Parts: sequence; C-alpha cells; structure tokens
Amino acid sequence: MKIPIVKQVLEANDRIAEENRRLFKEKRILVINLMSGPGAGKTTLLEKTIPALNSRYRLGVVEGDIQSTYDAERIASTGVPVVQINTGGACHLDANMVREAVDKLDVGSLDILIVENVGNLVCPAEFNIGEDYKVALLSVAEGDDKPLKYPLIFHESSLLLVNKTDLLPYVNCSVKKIREESLKINPRLEIYEVSCTTGDGLDRWFQWLATRVKKE
Amino acid sequence: MKIPIVKQVLEANDRIAEENRRLFKEKRILVINLMSGPGAGKTTLLEKTIPALNSRYRLGVVEGDIQSTYDAERIASTGVPVVQINTGGACHLDANMVREAVDKLDVGSLDILIVENVGNLVCPAEFNIGEDYKVALLSVAEGDDKPLKYPLIFHESSLLLVNKTDLLPYVNCSVKKIREESLKINPRLEIYEVSCTTGDGLDRWFQWLATRVKKE
Repeated sequence: MKIPIVKQVLEANDRIAEENRRLFKEKRILVINLMSGPGAGKTTLLEKTIPALNSRYRLGVVEGDIQSTYDAERIASTGVPVVQINTGGACHLDANMVREAVDKLDVGSLDILIVENVGNLVCPAEFNIGEDYKVALLSVAEGDDKPLKYPLIFHESSLLLVNKTDLLPYVNCSVKKIREESLKINPRLEIYEVSCTTGDGLDRWFQWLATRVKKE
Repeated sequence: MKIPIVKQVLEANDRIAEENRRLFKEKRILVINLMSGPGAGKTTLLEKTIPALNSRYRLGVVEGDIQSTYDAERIASTGVPVVQINTGGACHLDANMVREAVDKLDVGSLDILIVENVGNLVCPAEFNIGEDYKVALLSVAEGDDKPLKYPLIFHESSLLLVNKTDLLPYVNCSVKKIREESLKINPRLEIYEVSCTTGDGLDRWFQWLATRVKKE
C-alpha cells in the first residue's frame, strides 16, 4: 500500500517540477537546489555568496524550513529578495511549494535563484523542484561516512561543497575518503572544499555559479 | 488528500508502537530511541556507552540506516547483540520496523535496548516506536539555532545531549542559547553537555541510563 502512494506523490511532484522548469527556462534563470543536513552551513554559504555576486547578477532566494523565519531574516538583511516557505512539518521542499514561493518573487528580473532546502540529508534529494542543478553541502564535522550512508543526495547532485574545512584539525574526518566514496556513487560529481568561516575555496564556488548564469 | 494519509500512517504506527511498548514492559527492558541529525555522533556515543555499562547491564542495539551496515558493524565489534534495519529510503524508523528487528533479538535477556534512529532531525520525532524515552543528540558544530528550526525533536525528547563540546572554541555556537531555546519548547527537557571525543560529561549520561534500568 505504501509504495504506490509514494510513487503517486513523486509522479505528481515531477509534473509540477516540469512546469517550474519550463518557467525558469523561459525566464532564463539559473536555479540551484541547495541541500544538506542540519547545520552544515547552507545559510552561511548564502550570506557569503550574495555579497560576492550581487553587483554582477540579480539574485533571489527561497528559504525552506519546517517552521520559523530565522533564515529568511538572515538572507533579507543582505538585501536580496527572499521568500520563506514553512513546510509545517514536512521534511523537504516539493515542486508545488517552490511554485507558490516563486509566484511571490519577480522571477523574470532574476539571474540566479537559490532554493535553500530543509536541513535533511535524506528526503530533499527525492523531490525535483525544477532546478538546473542540485548542490549538496557536507560539513566535515559530520564525518566521512556520509556518502556511504546517505548515497542518494550524492548521486543526485552536480556539485558537492565540503564545508567547514577549518575544523579539519579538530575532527576525525578524511576529505579523501569523502571524495572517493562520493565519486563511487556519482563519478561526475564535482567536489570543492570550502570554509565559509575563513572564506577558503569560496571563489571556485562563485565561479561555478557565474559560468552557469544564462543571461548575459 | 495528503493530510488524511499521514494521519492514517501515524495512527497505524501508534497501534504497533503500543504493542512494542507492552512487550518491552512485560520483559522489563529499558528502551531508548536515540535521534539526531546526520553526523551528530550517535554511533560514537554508543561505542563509548557500551563498554562503560556492559559489565553491569545486558545491552542490545538496533541500528537504523537508509542503507549500509557500517554502523551495525561498528557496534558489533563492541560485542553486544545488534540488528541492522535498512529502511530502503525511508528517512525514519517506524514501530513496525522496530518490531521486526526486535524479533531477531533475544529481548527477554536484555536490560537496555538502544535504538539508533536514522540521522534526521525531522521525521524520526514523529514516529513512536514503543520506547520509554526519546534522547536527542545535537552537535555544537550544527549551531545554536536548531531548537528554533526543528522544534519537534526537542519537544518530544526527555534528554538532550549537546555533543562535541570539544569543538566549542572553534565554532560559533552558544550552549546557553541551545539551553534557553530548548527549554522554551520543552521545560522538562534535561540537558547534558558531553564530548564523545574527550569523554567529558559522559558519566552523567551513563548514570541517567543506569537509574532507569527496570531489572535489578
């Protein structure tokens, strides 16, 4: 009984994701679905990314959270348009939630839309939202066994940002192992090491985004 | 359409959880549902807890993971009985999965059964498994905004272990804020600060468990 229901939900989601994708393509917006476990640093990454790119590109953000508007307030203070989705218990964003959020943005005016998903290494990876790319963030404090234990997110993502590299001297985590295990799951995955605290490695990420912008 | 299905699923789960609870009560086993986000240190906590209590109490472990048997292998090497549940994509354990796992253990012989849930701060808190206590683990590397953003797990838990306190000098996290925000959500929550790396604070946790064992 359970599996057919899940299949129906995912198929309905994919139909709406396809509509989102058409809209984003027509408006020539680069759309990123940013995913990670709780506290890996998604919002902090955005706080670093927005000032770095804001003079060249028009950015917008959709913030996904179970409840609270805390992250949206952090993003709003950077000056870019932001819409908060409160999932009310749901552990991931789906295409319909994103469609409703996008309705509240002047999407046609944007170059880049970053959707920060709910902090969860599991479910968000199952739901397409019409994005161009899924980007996963993993904190080295979470340990190097995460690709092995949560493979779907590594399989679905185009880019993995291994974050908090400033903590490497203090935690038991091998970035080499993260690389090896992730590439076994997804040989095309790009992997950058970054620290949102020190700024190390972030230029490559800004460049990765900039080269994918569709409007010139 | 979605909400009635969720309600049905939760009600069916609660019925099975109640059966589990009756079994655990009859056998006088202390059952802990250990929950956290990915990489907060649940398995490492168990690797520290088992040797500390194993001479006085008979422990058993149920390991919940999306896939892989990596954590169960780590626990098996401590010498206690362990059963792995692979949820095959599901982001939480439910009462039925735990019932099936418990069938494979000689539960009558145990004093303490610890069920390590899937690494996820969201969904596990919604599903009772028949446990006596829910215990939540939060790594300081995840940041002090987690109670605000993921309130259910803090609301449902009896004990919160704030882990990885050895990283406090290197991360932007106030344990005071975690305490204040958690207690707003759940005034009866007990909160212990621990480091599974240095061992700091773990004695209180061992004591917390020991005083709740039902067989003497």
